Amino acid sequence: MLSYLEKIRIVLSHTSHPGNIGSAARAMKTMGLTELYLVCPKHFPDPQAIALASGAADVLEHAVICDSLEMALAETVYSVGLTARRRDLPHTIVDLGQCRTEILTRASHGKIAFVFGNETSGLSNDELAYCQQLITIPTDSVYGSLNLAAAVQIVTYEMRQAALALSGQQQEAILHHAAVGAKPATHEEINGFLKHLETILFDLKYLNPKAPKRLMPRLTRLFARAELEQDEIHLLRGILTAIHHLDEKVKK
Amino acid sequence: MLSYLEKIRIVLSHTSHPGNIGSAARAMKTMGLTELYLVCPKHFPDPQAIALASGAADVLEHAVICDSLEMALAETVYSVGLTARRRDLPHTIVDLGQCRTEILTRASHGKIAFVFGNETSGLSNDELAYCQQLITIPTDSVYGSLNLAAAVQIVTYEMRQAALALSGQQQEAILHHAAVGAKPATHEEINGFLKHLETILFDLKYLNPKAPKRLMPRLTRLFARAELEQDEIHLLRGILTAIHHLDEKVKK
Repeated sequence: MLSYLEKIRIVLSHTSHPGNIGSAARAMKTMGLTELYLVCPKHFPDPQAIALASGAADVLEHAVICDSLEMALAETVYSVGLTARRRDLPHTIVDLGQCRTEILTRASHGKIAFVFGNETSGLSNDELAYCQQLITIPTDSVYGSLNLAAAVQIVTYEMRQAALALSGQQQEAILHHAAVGAKPATHEEINGFLKHLETILFDLKYLNPKAPKRLMPRLTRLFARAELEQDEIHLLRGILTAIHHLDEKVKK
Repeated sequence: MLSYLEKIRIVLSHTSHPGNIGSAARAMKTMGLTELYLVCPKHFPDPQAIALASGAADVLEHAVICDSLEMALAETVYSVGLTARRRDLPHTIVDLGQCRTEILTRASHGKIAFVFGNETSGLSNDELAYCQQLITIPTDSVYGSLNLAAAVQIVTYEMRQAALALSGQQQEAILHHAAVGAKPATHEEINGFLKHLETILFDLKYLNPKAPKRLMPRLTRLFARAELEQDEIHLLRGILTAIHHLDEKVKK
């Protein structure tokens, strides 16, 4: 069941300190993970990252650098955002330990991403909108300031523990579910649908390109939470196409 | 039940890099632990330790510096040594996750110490001999090189999880056990007995001061593993005193 660990991607977004990237790579490798994506790192590559990676320099060498979180989530079927407990967030935030097995079993469908934000500011609201699940690491109520690489270490340790704990019976159940269950939409499929939706909303003049307000981020968050399946994407895009045809007829 | 966390001491022995001491202090504080003992740190106090401690500089300020592990274990009733899986060790090594609750419940008797060795060489055999329990953090079979502060982060996270998971019923059972059960000997009591034993072995000429070989370290390890109770210490020292009297009679 440890092959599930190979399906976990660690995404570090807008990291300020290259040393943290190196330490995160080392943390990953000790737990059997190797796939690292970096969204707009402030300094990378950097000698400090290599120094702190210690024997995990290969993880850094194969790291994929992206311009946006959207790109870093390519090919994933589920993305999990790390955040401190905050009252202003619309999603429900779950403790890591309570959902580790559930998250791991989603790897039967494809890649899973854990997304970590900037050291000081965390994930932006726009980034959080891409995450299907928000999780937190329970910390002291007075001082909860986990170092970025320390958070990566705890998450990868918990996922390894979850993989080690899966019994043969559970493994069979997961494989069965993957074979017969509905296929979750990939990040690209969801995004293709959202771009399609945006176009239609422009056509309908529901969305004003000069004053889009926060409409698309809100819709992104809504559909991230919905955990869309592939069939549902086809259905929704069928509706959008029908609207488009109607619009063209009206314009003639 | 989180008050149990206050009874956990982190002992870092022969740490080479002061940055690791700072990062370990930060890791501890995020999980609600504050008691740090340092055995012969190479550089301490040090500006790098303070920088990496971030908001946990108070943990460093109150850190106790010791000349030996023996001193650092003062007032503890149970000490747990961290080690990689090694075939040459006589103790049984248990995975952290499997024994976290059992370890935590020992805090009903007094202080518990988690002992971490040097970054490169780990704990020496003489240091391991003082530990009642050896534990390991399960890592990747090919690359298991956990950073020192990362190991402290995982251990303190697991202990916090264990404390959070204890139900009311378990708490009552622990308190009951603490009230009626046998009292474990403290580190000082065990050590006092071992010094007493050593004196007697000299008297008996069983132990040659010029060629002590590895006798005392082996006895230390044996009695660490035995988890002696206070009553048993009294019993054993009674025997030693009887031997001493016999020896004096013979010498007259």
